[in-house]
Amino acid sequence: MKLGGLGEDAVIAALLRGLPATPGVIRGPGDDCAVIGTPRAKLWRLLKTDCLVEGVHFRPGEDPRKIGWKALARPLSDFAAMAGRPQHALVTLAISPDADLKLATALYAGLRKCAAKYGVAIVGGETARSPGPMFISVMLSGEVERHLCVFRSGGQPGDALFVTGRLGGSIKGRHLTFQPRVEEARWLSRHLQLHAMMDLSDGLATDLPRLALASGCGFHLDEAALPLNPGCTQKQALADGEDYELLLALPPPEAFKLRILWPRKFPALPLTEIGALTGPSPRSGKKNSRAPHGYDHFA
Amino acid sequence: MKLGGLGEDAVIAALLRGLPATPGVIRGPGDDCAVIGTPRAKLWRLLKTDCLVEGVHFRPGEDPRKIGWKALARPLSDFAAMAGRPQHALVTLAISPDADLKLATALYAGLRKCAAKYGVAIVGGETARSPGPMFISVMLSGEVERHLCVFRSGGQPGDALFVTGRLGGSIKGRHLTFQPRVEEARWLSRHLQLHAMMDLSDGLATDLPRLALASGCGFHLDEAALPLNPGCTQKQALADGEDYELLLALPPPEAFKLRILWPRKFPALPLTEIGALTGPSPRSGKKNSRAPHGYDHFA
Repeated sequence: MKLGGLGEDAVIAALLRGLPATPGVIRGPGDDCAVIGTPRAKLWRLLKTDCLVEGVHFRPGEDPRKIGWKALARPLSDFAAMAGRPQHALVTLAISPDADLKLATALYAGLRKCAAKYGVAIVGGETARSPGPMFISVMLSGEVERHLCVFRSGGQPGDALFVTGRLGGSIKGRHLTFQPRVEEARWLSRHLQLHAMMDLSDGLATDLPRLALASGCGFHLDEAALPLNPGCTQKQALADGEDYELLLALPPPEAFKLRILWPRKFPALPLTEIGALTGPSPRSGKKNSRAPHGYDHFA
Repeated sequence: MKLGGLGEDAVIAALLRGLPATPGVIRGPGDDCAVIGTPRAKLWRLLKTDCLVEGVHFRPGEDPRKIGWKALARPLSDFAAMAGRPQHALVTLAISPDADLKLATALYAGLRKCAAKYGVAIVGGETARSPGPMFISVMLSGEVERHLCVFRSGGQPGDALFVTGRLGGSIKGRHLTFQPRVEEARWLSRHLQLHAMMDLSDGLATDLPRLALASGCGFHLDEAALPLNPGCTQKQALADGEDYELLLALPPPEAFKLRILWPRKFPALPLTEIGALTGPSPRSGKKNSRAPHGYDHFA
C-alpha cells in the first residue's frame, strides 16, 4: 500500500501503533507536542520537531529569510497550541553543496529573527549534504506549567468553539510570515478554563475533526460564521491549511467571559465563535464526513 | 562562496556566528550535544538532533530496518560522548508518497529496536512528503548528572588519548549496525576522571583535531598503535569515518587505572591508547595539518 493512498494520520498511526506507554510521558504521539513529566509535577517538558521540504512547504527561489522564519514559527505554533513556553531550538539543514553560503546565512537570519522575537535560544545546528531538495528540521524544547497545559482531548459536548485571526488564502504569502499565537495562548490559558486547543496547520476541515475525535465528541460548524481572509471563500477557509491560528473549545460560561475579555486584551486580532462540540452522534459524524477536506501531506 | 568549498565546520561556524549567550545554556553549538541547565544544578538536560539523507548516509535500497537503527544510533552516540542518559526521541520522516507503507514500517521497526535496546521512548513522529531523497531526522532529549558530564574542551597537555573498539572500514556495513557506546561512556565517567570525550563520526583525522582545538591543545598521534578493523589500513582508520567509537582524554594517573579496570569490565571491547594531548606548539599544529582528512559533509 502506497503512503500517498493512506493519508498522513493513517500513516502515522500505522508507524506508531503499539508503542509501549512509558512512565514519565504524559502525552506521546497524537497531540501538538509531546509532554514529558510526572502527573503531579508543577512543570512539564514539551518537545516538538517540525520540518520544511523544498517544493512542498516552500517554493524553490523563495526568500530564504522567510523560509527560516517559517521553519521555527511552525513548531512555535504547536507550542502555542498547548499554551507552552518555548525555550531551546536545534536546527538541522540538509542542503546542496552547490548552494551559496549567502542563501544559508539568510535562512539563518530568518530563524534568528523568529527566535529573538519569541525568546528562543538556538543551541545547536547540524548541516548535511542534500542531493535533492533543501530540508530544514527544527526541534524545539520548552516547558509548560501543568495547570496551564491544554490538550486536544479535553473537549466536551456543549463546548463553544472559537478561532483566532482569519482563515484561508495562506498560500498567497502568509504561510511564510505568520505570527505563532504563543502569547495569546498563554493568556487564554491563564485567564480562562480551556477544555481543548490546537493550532490550525492543515485547515479547519481536517483539524476540527481531529480535535473532536480526540475529545470523543462530534461537532457543529457554522460555516457562515467563519472569519475569512480578504478574497477568500468559505471553502478556502476550511481547506487551504497553514493558517496557524488557534482553535479552542471551552464551556459556555467561559465563552461568555472570553467574548468580553478578548477584545480588551487583543483588540487587533479577531476571535470568532464558529460552532460547538456535540455528543458523538451519528448526525455529527455525518456532518464531519461531508465537510471539505483540508491539506493532507501525502495526498 | 559555495558551501561545498567551505567544509562543514566553517559552514556551521558561519551560520551560528554571534549567537547571543543565553542564561541557562551550559553549552550551545560546538559540542556533541547542547547542554541546558544552571551551573550548580545536579542534573543537566541534553538535546541533540541528527539526520540521515538517502544517497548520503545510506544507499537507496538499503535494508530499512538498518536505516532506522542508524537514525537513532547516531544521536545516541553523541549522548555517549557526553556520558549522557538518553530518554525521549521524536522522529521526522520525509518520504515519497509513492513509497510503500512496508518500507516505512520496517524503518520504524529498526528505530524501535534501537529505542528498546537503549531505553529510549519514541514520544512523537512527523511525516512529510519528499519529492526527492528520503530524510530521517531524530531529535533526542535526555539528561546527565552534572558531575558526570564530559565536554570536548576539557583536555589538558599531557593527557593520554584512548579509543574504544576498532577503526576504519565502516562503509562495509558497520555504519548501519554499530552499537553506540552509551553504557561504556557512563561507566568511564563514573569510574575515572575524564578530561574530554567525543564520539568518532567523521574519522579520527578530523575528530581528534576538533577535540584538541576545543581543548586549546595540540596532539601527538601514534598511528602505528591505531586499532584497525580487519582488512583496513591506517589511512582508512584515520579517514573513513562513521566509527562511532569514543575518543577520550584523561591524565596519566587515571590512564593507569583505566588500563587495569577496562578489560575486567568490558573484556570483549578493545580499548587502545593512541597518543597524547600536547601544548599548542607550532610542531603539534604542523602534525595536525599533515594528518589525512576525515569525512567532510560538504566535500
